[in-house]
Amino acid sequence: MGQQEGGGNGSAVARPLSVRWAAEVLRGIAQVVFVPSAGCGLLFVAALFAAGRQYGLYGLLGSAVSTAVAYGLGLDRGAIGAGLHGYNGCLVALGCAVFLEAGHPATVATAVLGCAVAVVVTAGLGALLEKWRLPPLTAPFCLVATAVTVAATGFRRLWHGAGPPAAPPVPATGESGPGWEQLWHGFFANIGQIFLMPQWYVGLLVLVGLFAASRRAGLTACAGSATGLLTAWAFGAPAEAVGQGLLGYSGVLVSLALCGAFVAPSGWSAAFALLGAAAATVLTPAFAAISAVFGGHAFTWPFVLTTMLFLAAAPTVPRVRRV
Amino acid sequence: MGQQEGGGNGSAVARPLSVRWAAEVLRGIAQVVFVPSAGCGLLFVAALFAAGRQYGLYGLLGSAVSTAVAYGLGLDRGAIGAGLHGYNGCLVALGCAVFLEAGHPATVATAVLGCAVAVVVTAGLGALLEKWRLPPLTAPFCLVATAVTVAATGFRRLWHGAGPPAAPPVPATGESGPGWEQLWHGFFANIGQIFLMPQWYVGLLVLVGLFAASRRAGLTACAGSATGLLTAWAFGAPAEAVGQGLLGYSGVLVSLALCGAFVAPSGWSAAFALLGAAAATVLTPAFAAISAVFGGHAFTWPFVLTTMLFLAAAPTVPRVRRV
Amino acid sequence: MGQQEGGGNGSAVARPLSVRWAAEVLRGIAQVVFVPSAGCGLLFVAALFAAGRQYGLYGLLGSAVSTAVAYGLGLDRGAIGAGLHGYNGCLVALGCAVFLEAGHPATVATAVLGCAVAVVVTAGLGALLEKWRLPPLTAPFCLVATAVTVAATGFRRLWHGAGPPAAPPVPATGESGPGWEQLWHGFFANIGQIFLMPQWYVGLLVLVGLFAASRRAGLTACAGSATGLLTAWAFGAPAEAVGQGLLGYSGVLVSLALCGAFVAPSGWSAAFALLGAAAATVLTPAFAAISAVFGGHAFTWPFVLTTMLFLAAAPTVPRVRRV
Repeated sequence: MGQQEGGGNGSAVARPLSVRWAAEVLRGIAQVVFVPSAGCGLLFVAALFAAGRQYGLYGLLGSAVSTAVAYGLGLDRGAIGAGLHGYNGCLVALGCAVFLEAGHPATVATAVLGCAVAVVVTAGLGALLEKWRLPPLTAPFCLVATAVTVAATGFRRLWHGAGPPAAPPVPATGESGPGWEQLWHGFFANIGQIFLMPQWYVGLLVLVGLFAASRRAGLTACAGSATGLLTAWAFGAPAEAVGQGLLGYSGVLVSLALCGAFVAPSGWSAAFALLGAAAATVLTPAFAAISAVFGGHAFTWPFVLTTMLFLAAAPTVPRVRRV
Repeated sequence: MGQQEGGGNGSAVARPLSVRWAAEVLRGIAQVVFVPSAGCGLLFVAALFAAGRQYGLYGLLGSAVSTAVAYGLGLDRGAIGAGLHGYNGCLVALGCAVFLEAGHPATVATAVLGCAVAVVVTAGLGALLEKWRLPPLTAPFCLVATAVTVAATGFRRLWHGAGPPAAPPVPATGESGPGWEQLWHGFFANIGQIFLMPQWYVGLLVLVGLFAASRRAGLTACAGSATGLLTAWAFGAPAEAVGQGLLGYSGVLVSLALCGAFVAPSGWSAAFALLGAAAATVLTPAFAAISAVFGGHAFTWPFVLTTMLFLAAAPTVPRVRRV
Repeated sequence: MGQQEGGGNGSAVARPLSVRWAAEVLRGIAQVVFVPSAGCGLLFVAALFAAGRQYGLYGLLGSAVSTAVAYGLGLDRGAIGAGLHGYNGCLVALGCAVFLEAGHPATVATAVLGCAVAVVVTAGLGALLEKWRLPPLTAPFCLVATAVTVAATGFRRLWHGAGPPAAPPVPATGESGPGWEQLWHGFFANIGQIFLMPQWYVGLLVLVGLFAASRRAGLTACAGSATGLLTAWAFGAPAEAVGQGLLGYSGVLVSLALCGAFVAPSGWSAAFALLGAAAATVLTPAFAAISAVFGGHAFTWPFVLTTMLFLAAAPTVPRVRRV
């Protein structure tokens, strides 16, 4: 039903409840990049704290609230244990911290309500998509975060920005040939933006976690990030956005999903995944333009849409094999 | 396939055809709030006439046209008899009366065409959603009414407004703490807005009908309206919009759907329904902002989206039970 | 899974590979109007060349790339042979030629990438919709072309236009009663716009091809075009847009789909199809207004949405019969 399940070993059951619960919350954070490992989750939390104390706290809060609500609703224990109810909550809370103001009590309340709703949305979408054996991916995060950021301007306790929140899309301007620094920044920022963070070192830490979890996952993320960079450069995306990882994060996620997480890794699935990564890279400014009109953001919609369609196509493509 | 079926008792078959048909048209109007009762429908028609003669006439026209088209297409008699083909037509016609100009012949023609199309859309969505035992709710109304109101500016016989129809969303301004009068007006207007009417007395009459149909339905509507008010107030929605019921109508419908109509009523389902009502309340300004950009309206999209996802999640939540 | 299958006769297998492949590419172009005939495809290519050399070349390129990618992925031979993987590619490439600048190398690259992605999207949507025996129609084209045209402004090598690409919808102005010339131009342009061409003679050539394939298909296209004209005129659409076929092309496609291609032709299915054609005509300015806001176009979204819902409804309507 969700991202990648597994990773819970038998001995974990014997640990005290609080330790088990903490492990599940951390696993929820690690599942953002399809890794069911509490250790990786701890590293990712460290990366979030490196970007800013508020991001670390919101990330933990989100995964914790969602995991608790999933227990409260009595959802499947195996899925909760694998962190499959935490990752959308983590992202929803991070979205609130980034796009509203992290210090306001109303933002905390919104994050908590959003994380609770995200659990139900994950369960609902999971049940809808099960007919095709498709996972909900980060669609619950995208739905809730889009709703919250668009609605924010209508609520005075949520909107503290100056000036109009929404603007019609304008043609790309600025440098289009990224320099060397923008390229290597962008390479890592593509990975950090999965957690909505533009700092290259956040991306580096997440990449270290991916390599720790599996060498293949780390290499796949690198290939996805490089494909995103190359596609963005080839079509002339603005250099600054490339350097902040705003074009390539969906490509990284698509690669991880289509070559390893949901499709058995192979040469053909790598090609399939990189075609998907290129498509998601082109799709990203499209979603950014559409959502900018009413004050929203692209979030990981390009990843969700691309991966859903490619995964749905997989059974008809004899060259690749679903796992 | 539709809202709540039932209510046709055996003896009705013996009544003359015209009486039976009139009862079905009225039941179609009552089904807007999941009540399969011709008496309630009559009361709701009275409420619409109280708001304005044109609204009563359009509401009757819509349910009548849709019911007639459903007969013409040879659709399932049981569903027609329960009013399951009338409620979307009633709402489509009311939408035309409210957002176009009720007095123009082109508006009547649009309403008739829209009601005919709504029957096919209801049947089509019903067949699509049947795979998950989900009802189409008011999605057909939302689809047709969005299409008509957005398309209207492109047709000179439909658009009589002055000035531009669409505008980018602007941050909320005006009073944010609603006064006592706005609160109690809003409490009833939340219910009246289900029929697109902002008058508190329309909401009161509809609430009387709900209590007449079932005490539990009346109480559930009250709880949903209160949740909508509370959520809107907590996040700082503009007081004037709160007083016109523009924030809370989806919450009322979500409560009715998730605690009684499609989920067996219980303490847990009440909590589930109120979480949904709060989510729909936040979703409402989001849909309003999105649709305002191209000249549309939120309609009951927040209700439809929230209820679909919560109902889809219900089978995986052991605490609640689908009916 | 796709549009109309069939048309490959046994002796074709004996022909040399290059001839067979050329026939499949041409059949892919003919499938845009549900005709699995290489001869019709050749005529349609001639019509595209008549509109402009670049359109003929892009149309051929699109069908060829998509057909080749479908072979590369190892998709079902029967579907490829019937041209079911070519028509979306043909339209995607034509969309690039029309809305980007046909002469730029980046436009060619975009068309090739888009056609490759369209094959996966067709396979994915086909698998998703198979649960209801619904065909993907031109939804893959609409998705890819919307993504490309909206994203284009974010890429400096794709966007060569002057001024802002997106604009809020404005109320219809100009003449609303089309003159005789606009009416007969519009009658044929409705058919030519299926290939994104506004010239009446393109539509005439496509209509000749339809009559050649089947007299009923030709008559159905005429009825659909007339319904679109009549609906647009009745509601007061701008005369110039009517004359360019911008209101009626979806109506033509809806008629072909709902009376012949996917529903057995009969008096009832003709009425069903013409109701759909009228609905799609009203839907067209709605989609145009929505997509104009972020720099997109209506494409054949009105046809796709209307036909999907009407086809989904068909099994519950005893008067019509799916084929």
